[in-house]
Amino acid sequence: MSVGEKGAYSAAGVDIDAQDRALGRIKKLARSTHTPGVLSSIGSFGGLFRPQLEGMEEPVLVASADGVGTKLMVARMVGDYSTVGQDLVNHCVNDILVQGARPLFFLDYVGAGVLEADAMEQLVKGVATACRENGCALLGGETAEMPGFYSKGDYELVGFVVGMVDRPRLLDSSRVAVGDILVGLPSTGLHTNGYSLARRVFFDTLGLGVEDPLPGGDGRSIGEELLAIHRSYLGDLEALLDHQGLHALAHITGGGLTDNLPRVLPRGTRAEVKLGTWEIPRVFYLLQEHGEVSTDEMLRVFNMGLGMVLIVAQDSLAEILASLRAGGTSGAVIGSVAKGKQGVVYDLSRTPEAEIDR
Amino acid sequence: MSVGEKGAYSAAGVDIDAQDRALGRIKKLARSTHTPGVLSSIGSFGGLFRPQLEGMEEPVLVASADGVGTKLMVARMVGDYSTVGQDLVNHCVNDILVQGARPLFFLDYVGAGVLEADAMEQLVKGVATACRENGCALLGGETAEMPGFYSKGDYELVGFVVGMVDRPRLLDSSRVAVGDILVGLPSTGLHTNGYSLARRVFFDTLGLGVEDPLPGGDGRSIGEELLAIHRSYLGDLEALLDHQGLHALAHITGGGLTDNLPRVLPRGTRAEVKLGTWEIPRVFYLLQEHGEVSTDEMLRVFNMGLGMVLIVAQDSLAEILASLRAGGTSGAVIGSVAKGKQGVVYDLSRTPEAEIDR
Repeated sequence: MSVGEKGAYSAAGVDIDAQDRALGRIKKLARSTHTPGVLSSIGSFGGLFRPQLEGMEEPVLVASADGVGTKLMVARMVGDYSTVGQDLVNHCVNDILVQGARPLFFLDYVGAGVLEADAMEQLVKGVATACRENGCALLGGETAEMPGFYSKGDYELVGFVVGMVDRPRLLDSSRVAVGDILVGLPSTGLHTNGYSLARRVFFDTLGLGVEDPLPGGDGRSIGEELLAIHRSYLGDLEALLDHQGLHALAHITGGGLTDNLPRVLPRGTRAEVKLGTWEIPRVFYLLQEHGEVSTDEMLRVFNMGLGMVLIVAQDSLAEILASLRAGGTSGAVIGSVAKGKQGVVYDLSRTPEAEIDR
Repeated sequence: MSVGEKGAYSAAGVDIDAQDRALGRIKKLARSTHTPGVLSSIGSFGGLFRPQLEGMEEPVLVASADGVGTKLMVARMVGDYSTVGQDLVNHCVNDILVQGARPLFFLDYVGAGVLEADAMEQLVKGVATACRENGCALLGGETAEMPGFYSKGDYELVGFVVGMVDRPRLLDSSRVAVGDILVGLPSTGLHTNGYSLARRVFFDTLGLGVEDPLPGGDGRSIGEELLAIHRSYLGDLEALLDHQGLHALAHITGGGLTDNLPRVLPRGTRAEVKLGTWEIPRVFYLLQEHGEVSTDEMLRVFNMGLGMVLIVAQDSLAEILASLRAGGTSGAVIGSVAKGKQGVVYDLSRTPEAEIDR
């Protein structure tokens, strides 16, 4: 009974020993994120986390699952897998932040045809970096080598976050009222949405490569522009989560302002958004122009420069803007909540059409 | 400002409206799993769950992420995506069960090149079915259409479970002692591990198809054999979780008995397993013979007919076996815990070699 140097399972494309070695490095990265709540290390069947329940009236768990979409294919083109892990964690953290929750822990899943140690470490390093930044423990994860299912060099990256909020502090649509003000926070770029269209426009229609400069830009390459890290708004908003004047938050992801704002609007109210009240980054104009995309569709696919929208009470606006500014974030007043059919209407009167040609 | 019948984003391979329609059906499936703890429906940014903390000394959350591996490729060959969702949930539930936790909620992720409504519904239906069976709420999920990343017909399926256990009832290696007895519970087949090797043996080496009968079997097809649903042991074990004589549990997944038993063995102890004390299903003999795999490697890749191992106190053995029997499960005494280097040693003296040829 002896195992050969290279067993039959390895011949089938799965190298358990190589996975074990990479797992050792991943464990170390995960440990670097551990907060006092963590009771286990990776390697247990499940990860153990003891939440701090003291002082909470009615603890509610908030959970979200997400992927990075075809931004992964841009990472592959650039040959840099170190940022998509940060995109993933920040996206997930924002998704529960909008309900008032702070993250407790995160789990990741990496799937590949062949798990190359370097790429895998870059992926998990990104995850661990963002976990540390968000005070969120990387509690566990799964790596799957699926030869024949994934092309070599392609990595699927999926994440799950669990956070907690005290029920009286839960954010949803219930506090939103007619007259409330919409405050937008800047995104860093496309975040994690619209990459199928963006890849088509830049690489197919315009025939450019990731190393080419963004046309009409400041010298930044298309690869850099497209891999700009999805921003976490936890640092910007944590201090405001207990502010009575903060009525709701919307994370602007797939579906854009058009589909995401209504998720926090009560029945019988609509969001009125004035285009031109914030600066739409150049990349979106390029995508609209060369992708021949209508403005309506742009607003439903891309974040258009706003990654997070706050809905705030009118009488708290000045205070909330000041708090954001004190934290180094500039919030733009982009519109308000009015009576109407649940949805978003855009006021185009302030659109500086000239910007298209700038 | 009007959106065309088929917008540019659709032309890039992503059909948001089709996704919305499928999402409606998925929401309905998810609602069918909802338990009293669920405070939100799918569609919120994050799923909300209020855990029942009454009567708990120190609630600990237990979380696990998993995939289904290349069993997905067998589902594709058979054209039946209705079972892999059950595999996924049951796998995840078992992974936290071994730490004494009962599942609270589950989230899934489905990735595909093109999300075909039928396949997607089958996938989520499987997830929802198993969630209901395990009393676990399907709290949320993500579907990602990634044209160019996945081949048409390929679906990635990833899951994430969160459960809870009261810290004094947490199961780990701490109660395991020399002299404890190993009790194995039967698996239903390969569960979710070893599919790269199994596909190679059946489809490449033997040149068979999914509709061919398993050689020397009872008429069951290879497709049926390979898609047999990963069993959840929650129903079998829930009544025993508070039994003082149950010292530990090991879920036998990738790594087999060889790598999974040591995860619950204290330092200085080893598991002594007697081959021949349980019936190894025919499929594993076929894989060993035609895959030319050593017994050592078989025991490290496949569950070999045991999906779960209980480590029990000697003086509780009769009671625990009786409890399992009363629940309709036959536990096999497969060995014991002895002094030694942390690991598994196999006693081959009871291996009926003749079985190879039966």
